Amino acid sequence: MSPRDFKHLLARAAADHDSLVCVGLDPEPEKFPPHLRGVAHSIFEFNKAIVDATADLVCSYKPQFAHYAALRAEDQLEQTIRYINARAPGVPVILDSKRGDIGNTAGKYAQEAFERYGADAVTVNPYLGGDSVQPFLERKDKGIVVLCRTSNPGARDFQDLEVGGGRRLYHAVAERVAKEWNRHGNCLLVVGATYPAELAEVRGIVGDVPFLVPGVGAQGGDVVQAVRNGRTRDGGGLVINSSRGILYAGNDERFADAARRAALQLRDEINAARR
Amino acid sequence: MSPRDFKHLLARAAADHDSLVCVGLDPEPEKFPPHLRGVAHSIFEFNKAIVDATADLVCSYKPQFAHYAALRAEDQLEQTIRYINARAPGVPVILDSKRGDIGNTAGKYAQEAFERYGADAVTVNPYLGGDSVQPFLERKDKGIVVLCRTSNPGARDFQDLEVGGGRRLYHAVAERVAKEWNRHGNCLLVVGATYPAELAEVRGIVGDVPFLVPGVGAQGGDVVQAVRNGRTRDGGGLVINSSRGILYAGNDERFADAARRAALQLRDEINAARR
Repeated sequence: MSPRDFKHLLARAAADHDSLVCVGLDPEPEKFPPHLRGVAHSIFEFNKAIVDATADLVCSYKPQFAHYAALRAEDQLEQTIRYINARAPGVPVILDSKRGDIGNTAGKYAQEAFERYGADAVTVNPYLGGDSVQPFLERKDKGIVVLCRTSNPGARDFQDLEVGGGRRLYHAVAERVAKEWNRHGNCLLVVGATYPAELAEVRGIVGDVPFLVPGVGAQGGDVVQAVRNGRTRDGGGLVINSSRGILYAGNDERFADAARRAALQLRDEINAARR
Repeated sequence: MSPRDFKHLLARAAADHDSLVCVGLDPEPEKFPPHLRGVAHSIFEFNKAIVDATADLVCSYKPQFAHYAALRAEDQLEQTIRYINARAPGVPVILDSKRGDIGNTAGKYAQEAFERYGADAVTVNPYLGGDSVQPFLERKDKGIVVLCRTSNPGARDFQDLEVGGGRRLYHAVAERVAKEWNRHGNCLLVVGATYPAELAEVRGIVGDVPFLVPGVGAQGGDVVQAVRNGRTRDGGGLVINSSRGILYAGNDERFADAARRAALQLRDEINAARR
């Protein structure tokens, strides 16, 4: 076992903090409280305050790549991940960059996620198939989070297409992950809280493969329903992400306190539903 | 019409240079000629030499994002695109980053591609459906290159699944693009040269929607077959990418001359096949 192993970190943080909450670090400077606007490295300063306020309440953090890339802020993404590693070394970081490319290029993306950024896990898109995820899967110490049934309205366009035998495309993705891609036990699946019936279906297909669940809060997914339908037999197997609902719970100098309260409330709501 | 419009740039460059060749700028420093290794900004210097040697022979350039991101070289990607714009202002740049995320995040990726990097076109992954491409499609002046049937072995895993009525998933993607997403005429489809029968099928579905065709050269796709099966009625509609076959045609101080010869040979081979 590597000195830092995603699966173990995630399980330990969830147990130690009694929490299935993942805070999505999706910085939008136009929503920052006024005292942080226009400040140098305001993205990092914002994230730092959120991490300080929530580190004992979460099982993971999930920075979303586009929010940094659009603003030429890869340095602040690096800085944020280093800060989490130092401030909360037991809390794993999931880089949400939804990578997907052919085999030799996928290797470069694995290098980006795990060496350059030092992430513990990364989200990947399954459309390009086996060789596009292979360089990720080989990293037994890392988490590979495969998009399955996403939380957005467009999820219906292709993911819901029937692919024979009464199965839909997202069922086929779930099966492939459970039967083939998860041979090192390092896979997770993205299944959105906005489609609770689909959560139950995918849980039925994949056994105990953990889910990363976006879509609660701003996107309207019901937490109780999502937990009941998505949990494993032991009441776990879920990493429930909230971004805007926590980051922007307050918008003045005490925004981090408001974020803490929002994270605590979500944690308790999840815990009440899963037991 | 915007002062810089992808469709018009592409058509003009293809006509002026009598070329359907796209040079993929996938820098791999370990393959650079010895005199460029360890040099500051060697990625940019390598790209600059390739662009200088091929600018009159191509219809577009396609930098592949992972090759820069893995090496913390976003600045050299920016520098490369600015250089192409200055040196060959009539040649459009396709940023190959295969983005795909939910609606509000997709907007950030559009900002990244078009504002931050100033690309003329970007590749996108269709798995997340309509709202994930909408912020791109709204940019009438840009090219939106949707993955359809990719060139890698894993393309079979999900893209080939039958989705009813004798259609496969990649057919459904092609139809959706042709009938809905292409309403501003700014879409292209990725169809790999390694699967010539699929090129013909997709051409049959989408009429004159242009194809970005990877997979010739190092990946083994046959150029003549790809051109015959993928071309539109007027012998065009193709952007045929070669990366490694051109970039690493030589590996000494005259690598740019070797790249020029390889680009010229590919251009002529394509032109012989399409007429």
